[in-house]
Amino acid sequence: MIVVLTGGTGGAKLVEGLAGEIDPAELTIICNTGDDAVFHGLYVSPDIDTITYTLAGLSDPVKGWGIAGDTFTVLEQLNRLGNDAWFNLGDKDFATHISRTRLMNEGGKLTEITDRIRRLLGVQSTILPMSDDRVETRVTTTQGEISFQEYFVKDRWRAEVTAVHFAGAASSRPAPGVIAAILNAEAIIVCPSNPITSIGPILAVPGIRSALAESAAPMVGVSPIIGASAISGPAHKLMLASGFKASALGVADCYRDFLDMLLVGAEDAALREAIENLDINVIATDIRMADRAHRRRLAREVLALARKWSRKPLSGLP
Amino acid sequence: MIVVLTGGTGGAKLVEGLAGEIDPAELTIICNTGDDAVFHGLYVSPDIDTITYTLAGLSDPVKGWGIAGDTFTVLEQLNRLGNDAWFNLGDKDFATHISRTRLMNEGGKLTEITDRIRRLLGVQSTILPMSDDRVETRVTTTQGEISFQEYFVKDRWRAEVTAVHFAGAASSRPAPGVIAAILNAEAIIVCPSNPITSIGPILAVPGIRSALAESAAPMVGVSPIIGASAISGPAHKLMLASGFKASALGVADCYRDFLDMLLVGAEDAALREAIENLDINVIATDIRMADRAHRRRLAREVLALARKWSRKPLSGLP
Repeated sequence: MIVVLTGGTGGAKLVEGLAGEIDPAELTIICNTGDDAVFHGLYVSPDIDTITYTLAGLSDPVKGWGIAGDTFTVLEQLNRLGNDAWFNLGDKDFATHISRTRLMNEGGKLTEITDRIRRLLGVQSTILPMSDDRVETRVTTTQGEISFQEYFVKDRWRAEVTAVHFAGAASSRPAPGVIAAILNAEAIIVCPSNPITSIGPILAVPGIRSALAESAAPMVGVSPIIGASAISGPAHKLMLASGFKASALGVADCYRDFLDMLLVGAEDAALREAIENLDINVIATDIRMADRAHRRRLAREVLALARKWSRKPLSGLP
Repeated sequence: MIVVLTGGTGGAKLVEGLAGEIDPAELTIICNTGDDAVFHGLYVSPDIDTITYTLAGLSDPVKGWGIAGDTFTVLEQLNRLGNDAWFNLGDKDFATHISRTRLMNEGGKLTEITDRIRRLLGVQSTILPMSDDRVETRVTTTQGEISFQEYFVKDRWRAEVTAVHFAGAASSRPAPGVIAAILNAEAIIVCPSNPITSIGPILAVPGIRSALAESAAPMVGVSPIIGASAISGPAHKLMLASGFKASALGVADCYRDFLDMLLVGAEDAALREAIENLDINVIATDIRMADRAHRRRLAREVLALARKWSRKPLSGLP
């Protein structure tokens, strides 16, 4: 098994590449749920859905979220009915949230429901939420504390952030299968997702970070930051607010206790020495994933590195 | 105020006619909620919605339920996600159910939510659920007991019915405003809805039937049955199963303790004497409402009868 830690959009690109390069049934994807939120009474799990839709071949390649060609009839009517519908949800996407919310209200766990939905959509990879317990990424701004979605979507990350914390993390438990997947992994890949609000919540679930440190699997990360800015999104701002440098070096620092290798942009080759001082090998390469071919190429490079590092051949590889 | 007791489809036609003939703000419509059901975790109130959509000019005139031109993307995707989606719900319609369910889960009462939704959709008439308490129409068939929607929609009323009862009715209370509307009404109109499963649940809420008997308003009903069959739906079958004749006489018998006048089909003029023996006046006329003009004409006739019976002029009338 190849184990992947990921958030949504950026991570989904690498996950798509990986699923194209190896048998997708050999992938176990551990997803951030810190961005999960309840909209209109429905439980929405944006990162799990982005990964599921991506692997089902349903995702919208332009928007980076939702289902390609989806319509917005429900949302428009919710607006007409006086609801503040600032979070975009398509009609097909609503079916996911309606179905999941019903199953949760009937006592189902997010892990079981995620697995049920991915199977129904024909996804062969295992998709695991980081936890079945509610962990909420909260963003403290100079204007007050808001949820991640309020910061990211409603506010379009304009607010000045002073801190990020994960409400509920301390008492949360890793979802069933997460620790075993990490300990038994043949390789672990940390996607180019936001280190603070996508990978951060996963690492904040007690037991996950120590399992990563304990696992013998080679661990390869891809930097979401080139130069001083994230390839997309506010990772650089949130890293600064969390006491890290806004650079690939900062990314390495976030993962210094478990990462073996970090792929950084060719532009960041000068950071090699500083990152290697953290005991992390550096590969400076093309880490942008503009199209499907780029995603496959980067996935091949990540897998080749993992294979080289590993003491035994990886399964699922051609 | 003109007060109307109604179920869904058949009643909605007369309600549409009435709202065209008088100031719609002078109408208070008391709706059956015995058919309400939870689908996919969402609270669906079919009769309230049919009346609301009808008065908002949104209803589908061909299907008799839902919103004209609505799409079915959510339902199709729910099917794909393994849900048994036998109850048709359009995308715009889903917005109603999502909105209502959230408000109910936040502690809102059906009465308030119904009023909020009708106002947002521009409906001037007051729409009242019969009760904020859950009353469920249960149909006993030779195959066992099922909900009304299972009988009516899923089974397409093929099962042989032996009894109908209203679970929860005994401990239910009329919704706020229902008793006052009945006692202060200038006229009360009983729509050509199913006497057992549309008007029956309303009358089963303790206090409503006695308020009707007590109210001084003229009470005019329209038979949903011509000859031995309902104009549409299974009213005749359910009347037989409940110990009533399947005829306009049976309809009169259902309402004998409060009704003043019953409009029956011209075909049923021969029932006049038997119905008048129940102390109910009979008007044999054209009671079919095939199109908008027929609905307006029947509404005019009903209003003229109420006006004639009343000791004072009715408000809202031209």
